[in-house]
Amino acid sequence: MANIGFIGLGNMGGPMAANLAKAGHKVKAFDLSTEALDKAVQAGCMKVNTALEAIQEAEFIISMLPAGKHVHGLYVSSEAPLFDHISSGTLVIDSSTIEADVARSVAHIAKEKGIEFIDAPVSGGVGGAQAGTLAFMVGGEPAQFDKALPVLECMGKNIFHAGEHGAGQIAKACNNMMLAILMAGTCEALNMGMKNGLDPKVLSDIMKQSSGNNWALQVYNPVPGVMENVPSSNQYQGGFMVDLMFKDLGLAMNLSQLSSSPTPMGSAARGLFNLHKEQGNGGLDFSSLIKLYQEK
Amino acid sequence: MANIGFIGLGNMGGPMAANLAKAGHKVKAFDLSTEALDKAVQAGCMKVNTALEAIQEAEFIISMLPAGKHVHGLYVSSEAPLFDHISSGTLVIDSSTIEADVARSVAHIAKEKGIEFIDAPVSGGVGGAQAGTLAFMVGGEPAQFDKALPVLECMGKNIFHAGEHGAGQIAKACNNMMLAILMAGTCEALNMGMKNGLDPKVLSDIMKQSSGNNWALQVYNPVPGVMENVPSSNQYQGGFMVDLMFKDLGLAMNLSQLSSSPTPMGSAARGLFNLHKEQGNGGLDFSSLIKLYQEK
Amino acid sequence: MANIGFIGLGNMGGPMAANLAKAGHKVKAFDLSTEALDKAVQAGCMKVNTALEAIQEAEFIISMLPAGKHVHGLYVSSEAPLFDHISSGTLVIDSSTIEADVARSVAHIAKEKGIEFIDAPVSGGVGGAQAGTLAFMVGGEPAQFDKALPVLECMGKNIFHAGEHGAGQIAKACNNMMLAILMAGTCEALNMGMKNGLDPKVLSDIMKQSSGNNWALQVYNPVPGVMENVPSSNQYQGGFMVDLMFKDLGLAMNLSQLSSSPTPMGSAARGLFNLHKEQGNGGLDFSSLIKLYQEK
Amino acid sequence: MANIGFIGLGNMGGPMAANLAKAGHKVKAFDLSTEALDKAVQAGCMKVNTALEAIQEAEFIISMLPAGKHVHGLYVSSEAPLFDHISSGTLVIDSSTIEADVARSVAHIAKEKGIEFIDAPVSGGVGGAQAGTLAFMVGGEPAQFDKALPVLECMGKNIFHAGEHGAGQIAKACNNMMLAILMAGTCEALNMGMKNGLDPKVLSDIMKQSSGNNWALQVYNPVPGVMENVPSSNQYQGGFMVDLMFKDLGLAMNLSQLSSSPTPMGSAARGLFNLHKEQGNGGLDFSSLIKLYQEK
Repeated sequence: MANIGFIGLGNMGGPMAANLAKAGHKVKAFDLSTEALDKAVQAGCMKVNTALEAIQEAEFIISMLPAGKHVHGLYVSSEAPLFDHISSGTLVIDSSTIEADVARSVAHIAKEKGIEFIDAPVSGGVGGAQAGTLAFMVGGEPAQFDKALPVLECMGKNIFHAGEHGAGQIAKACNNMMLAILMAGTCEALNMGMKNGLDPKVLSDIMKQSSGNNWALQVYNPVPGVMENVPSSNQYQGGFMVDLMFKDLGLAMNLSQLSSSPTPMGSAARGLFNLHKEQGNGGLDFSSLIKLYQEK
Repeated sequence: MANIGFIGLGNMGGPMAANLAKAGHKVKAFDLSTEALDKAVQAGCMKVNTALEAIQEAEFIISMLPAGKHVHGLYVSSEAPLFDHISSGTLVIDSSTIEADVARSVAHIAKEKGIEFIDAPVSGGVGGAQAGTLAFMVGGEPAQFDKALPVLECMGKNIFHAGEHGAGQIAKACNNMMLAILMAGTCEALNMGMKNGLDPKVLSDIMKQSSGNNWALQVYNPVPGVMENVPSSNQYQGGFMVDLMFKDLGLAMNLSQLSSSPTPMGSAARGLFNLHKEQGNGGLDFSSLIKLYQEK
Repeated sequence: MANIGFIGLGNMGGPMAANLAKAGHKVKAFDLSTEALDKAVQAGCMKVNTALEAIQEAEFIISMLPAGKHVHGLYVSSEAPLFDHISSGTLVIDSSTIEADVARSVAHIAKEKGIEFIDAPVSGGVGGAQAGTLAFMVGGEPAQFDKALPVLECMGKNIFHAGEHGAGQIAKACNNMMLAILMAGTCEALNMGMKNGLDPKVLSDIMKQSSGNNWALQVYNPVPGVMENVPSSNQYQGGFMVDLMFKDLGLAMNLSQLSSSPTPMGSAARGLFNLHKEQGNGGLDFSSLIKLYQEK
Repeated sequence: MANIGFIGLGNMGGPMAANLAKAGHKVKAFDLSTEALDKAVQAGCMKVNTALEAIQEAEFIISMLPAGKHVHGLYVSSEAPLFDHISSGTLVIDSSTIEADVARSVAHIAKEKGIEFIDAPVSGGVGGAQAGTLAFMVGGEPAQFDKALPVLECMGKNIFHAGEHGAGQIAKACNNMMLAILMAGTCEALNMGMKNGLDPKVLSDIMKQSSGNNWALQVYNPVPGVMENVPSSNQYQGGFMVDLMFKDLGLAMNLSQLSSSPTPMGSAARGLFNLHKEQGNGGLDFSSLIKLYQEK
């Protein structure tokens, strides 16, 4: 079992750290919130008072932070950057969802200092974090991926090696843009069918068995009542918030702009989620987008 | 076995009629093209010289025509409309892909004349027509659906009762709009990943097992070489032509306009397929849309 | 002064007929609404009881109807089509806004019967109709245009000869699509500026004197209070209704589809006006689209 | 006459510095390119060897750099940041087009150091820079604007005070997003008209005198031959490059994302310019977008 420093114990990071402890790893956990820290202790982690303490003697460091600036700050540009204190045998796994170019740049700085750093953003939401069934999309060298694998498997089910440094973030941006597009499309197609008298269950069933088949129809139908145990059947509570989808679409747009990759469909989806957010729905699950389409 | 009149023996109608004959039905086939007629005869159909002859003594009449105006003309508004000659025991099955409101209107006129008429557009392409694995989306009364079922099962695998008259066309318009959206989104996401250095096979695999999963990734990957036996690995020959997708998106837009159903994503997809068509690609498979995105 | 039959006395047709009467023409006016008829009489028109009566001895026939099916019905396909009763010296001017292909088709039928028929849709709204300052976009032969000119000048200010039969409708569809695009763009740019702290008057002034200059900034600013005497400063009452803009965008989409002309921007605008309409704003002026963008 | 340090002598900065010298100011000019420096000397500027030399004794410092990172580097984060050497009486005018939040952040750092810093991006292109007819959109305090005014008037014609620090960049992002939208819309409307047989001159004239009126129709028609002396009539050479419009749309998207301002139309336009750029047209004038629409 390994010594692991875990930084960032929010809705995602908290249960991820708990699953590592449950698997028998020695986890030193840190977060600015004492409430989050207390939960981590209850889940079997050791509480420390600073990020610096968390990484003492760590073989693995895992970070789960809100945005690129936090990751860059923690490791590189804050007043006491962790990269000044990490030894060369340590593997840093950043699971935050951030800009691919920031991930690449931090990995580059790490390499110059002889530190191993990989990007490993996740997919699967709070439910997946709790159940230990997250998907990880990893960017880094093959040896780094191999080294990270047993640790990641304590927290997730599908662990993908996407490519070089930054590739994990790129894969996540592509996937979540695709998700936004298919969810918006599914809302739109179901709404048009319903407005023309079709039963959403029947139409969903038809499209699921035809060429319109996609993840939203399979496991995340946006129309209340078509599926049980999905956010749409629970007033769009829980799930993946509109605000987070909007953030991820911003990362996709950033990637699109930097690489000059045309994203007309992703941009159209971003526009719709933005309109929906502005109408006060940022805190609802993202499948609530169908409300934007519906007659009032 | 039944007497069936079959009108319209094109790329789709030809093999559909052949499958009916193969199943033992007595099929009187008609088309304006003698070449198409000859093929039908080789496949076991009886050749007749007019649409009127085709429907003599028919228990079922099946039509497979290019557009709504042809269907309306054949049955209602030509100089010798078939509705003047169809007896009340006959079930007319129109498998053309046409405007939902035209289908509804023709069904309404049929009803007034005591004729049974259902809309039953198909999905699955020429390959599905030949293999007898088409999906049928049927609009009509339950008893009509039940009556049509054994005949449709000779030509297809998934037979859906979408709802009332017109509902088959509505379901098809919704499904194909969804298809256009997810294909455009998949092209866009894969292109962005590739432009940023990802291997399209790896990225396709990641998205297929994540929330970006959809029909295109599963059975119709648009990047040459990722899958075998798909149009993208055959210079985008065969499959479902850009011109036909553009036609179907026109039907979706018509439905959107008549029912005031917002279709921002479907409209964005229509714009892309239109640009692609204008650049001379109307005759290629619709997954060739990825070429529109690629650097030249 | 001429004998004129005028059919269709709605918000637009009523004041147009009145202006003809005011100019000294002898106008036989017909509408299904007795209220509309009474108003026309007060404005100096002669009331008749049928469309057929309106065209007796008319040198000019003007129609102003809601949609293509009404125009086609009136002249061609109703039980008593007017084209059966119009003499060859008469010029029919249809000022309805309808599909270009319907206008062309009706003109073609007219020609076969030796009747002169031109399309002459208008721009300028109810205000322009009342003030006699409408713009007319005319499709027809040069001699027909010349003949219509003095009559049109009684109702409008800018009279354009757009081209052959149907060209008037095409020009109107292009113009109104452009209008939808620039209004949506102006709403979007002003909203973004305001959300970032800019004064909408200042930003409007800057863009008006820069390369963002357009008709909305010049005479129809969508932000309440920036301009006087525009719908935005009157709770978006009056002006050009969202429902009508949505109808016109449908005509543009129809033209786009039939001619395979890509309209990604017009389609995006149509999507926005449709969302806005679904949220219950169909009866407001179209500059109210800015409400769709605003934080709630 | 004032002592002015000018940093960045590219296609825009070079003629701007020249106009300041022509007006009698004493201009110390710096650029990394010796060719650019030589031109500046020919135009009456004094050549210096470092940015630091350029600002010695300067009452005004003007910078014209490619992107936010260059501006931030020059003044704040390079190894020898200029803000360590600027005295409190000096007014720094940054005319680069950069992110509004970077402009605001640099202005904030300046203020803490007692330095006056305003953002003053320009509109009007190389032609406007040479002719001294640029538009300036200024963000800063009223007193700073007043102080800058006489200097800016040597280089431009319309000088706007957009608002507080950053407001100049915001106004420019809004205006150029509006420009992209109306140019794309104009290309689209004219192409649809032409595809349906209309003469582009006639259609342009109709829309210019109707509600579709906008800057592109007035002074920058995208169809070759409609106007003289515009890029479209010169093989789309000169003017404002597609690459630059794409960059500016990236800044607008960044502003949209940071402020959560919906930009569906601006995003659609960005998608089109991106597709056009990928097809190898990045170096053409942005009105060449009409080529993306045209049948091949």
